Amino acid sequence: MKNLLLASTSTLFGENYLEYLLDDVALFFKDVDTITFIPFARPGGISHDNYTAIAAKAFAKIDKKIVGLHTYPTAQEGINQSQAFFCGGGNTFLLVQQLYAQNAMQHLQEHITNGKPYMGTSAGSNIAGVSMHTTNDMPIVYPPSFATMQLVPFNINAHYLDPDPNSKHNGETRETRLKEFHVFNTTPVVGLREGSFLLVNNNTISLKGKHTARIFEPQKAPYESKTIQF
Amino acid sequence: MKNLLLASTSTLFGENYLEYLLDDVALFFKDVDTITFIPFARPGGISHDNYTAIAAKAFAKIDKKIVGLHTYPTAQEGINQSQAFFCGGGNTFLLVQQLYAQNAMQHLQEHITNGKPYMGTSAGSNIAGVSMHTTNDMPIVYPPSFATMQLVPFNINAHYLDPDPNSKHNGETRETRLKEFHVFNTTPVVGLREGSFLLVNNNTISLKGKHTARIFEPQKAPYESKTIQF
Repeated sequence: MKNLLLASTSTLFGENYLEYLLDDVALFFKDVDTITFIPFARPGGISHDNYTAIAAKAFAKIDKKIVGLHTYPTAQEGINQSQAFFCGGGNTFLLVQQLYAQNAMQHLQEHITNGKPYMGTSAGSNIAGVSMHTTNDMPIVYPPSFATMQLVPFNINAHYLDPDPNSKHNGETRETRLKEFHVFNTTPVVGLREGSFLLVNNNTISLKGKHTARIFEPQKAPYESKTIQF
Repeated sequence: MKNLLLASTSTLFGENYLEYLLDDVALFFKDVDTITFIPFARPGGISHDNYTAIAAKAFAKIDKKIVGLHTYPTAQEGINQSQAFFCGGGNTFLLVQQLYAQNAMQHLQEHITNGKPYMGTSAGSNIAGVSMHTTNDMPIVYPPSFATMQLVPFNINAHYLDPDPNSKHNGETRETRLKEFHVFNTTPVVGLREGSFLLVNNNTISLKGKHTARIFEPQKAPYESKTIQF
């Protein structure tokens, strides 16, 4: 019994936090009134309290209460007491390091696998995959492992970005990076463009939003898809 | 006695491999005839032999011979027998993982610190810094540590890219990422734009190329500089 909402981004250009997603969020969390917010991905300029307040403001619009996971005596206790989770974006290295440091990665995984709804945006979506090997983030901290919650049998590349044909910059395109991932790994990757999100109900996965997803599999040319199936 | 040439990129848009840099490379390596090429950063589509051949072709224009480090029985033996080094770009996670796996990171550092000239481009420049925490690369493999050779008392951000004022994408700018690095680390960072390179002669560091560098220090606004001094 798994219920996941995994979004590429929290915010679309020119919109408010979660604005484009709020109707779907309301439907996704229809059976819960309080959601535990996981603020650990956000590295700077904003405290866990302030980040939680941003999430709470958005969720208030759909009459849901938000409580920060950092406000419990321990993350494990917070996870035990939660009805549902929302993990916001930021830096995936930091998020993964924090979840391991607080012995929360596996604990969270178990509670979600046993049925508590989980929503992620950006870094929060990355950790639902098999590993964080396909994050776009800068490795500002060193996590003890790149393994994540493996709630879905693939990796997500959040904020998927098509190559810019006019670029004169020599950095690798996203597509090149993901192909290079498959030199060393066999896990499929779903490139989720901003505005796209996945709804996972047990083993049924639906792609929502106006974009197709770009799918990367080992030894196969990347392709566009309206469905997610491996 | 340290002699380093650390370039942001190997190749400028529309140019051949190392073309913009070749006069400076000739001068830098004026006292050696054979340079050991470190091909380990390149993840896919090209073998170590083929990557070494690309470097050899460029260096042939300045009458230097290139030998791949991978052609020696062990990397340590190759390092012992080398006069000088050139480490090419690719993926920094892979390069660092490979150097540790071959017990070459510290060995290489010692030989360079004792005077063998070292040139790096992109990932090859990143590993001359204190750590690889400021790479732009995707974490396609998991290295046993992010510590690098610490040949200079700062980190390099290769391919430094100014924010695009027209972007409607929600991914973090390079500047935001580097500021977030400083929430957890105190090492200064030199943002090296493509076309820039550093010449290091012991403790004297010169910035070459037509751009200024963007300097990031903890608790300080980023600034442009024509010199590198910490």
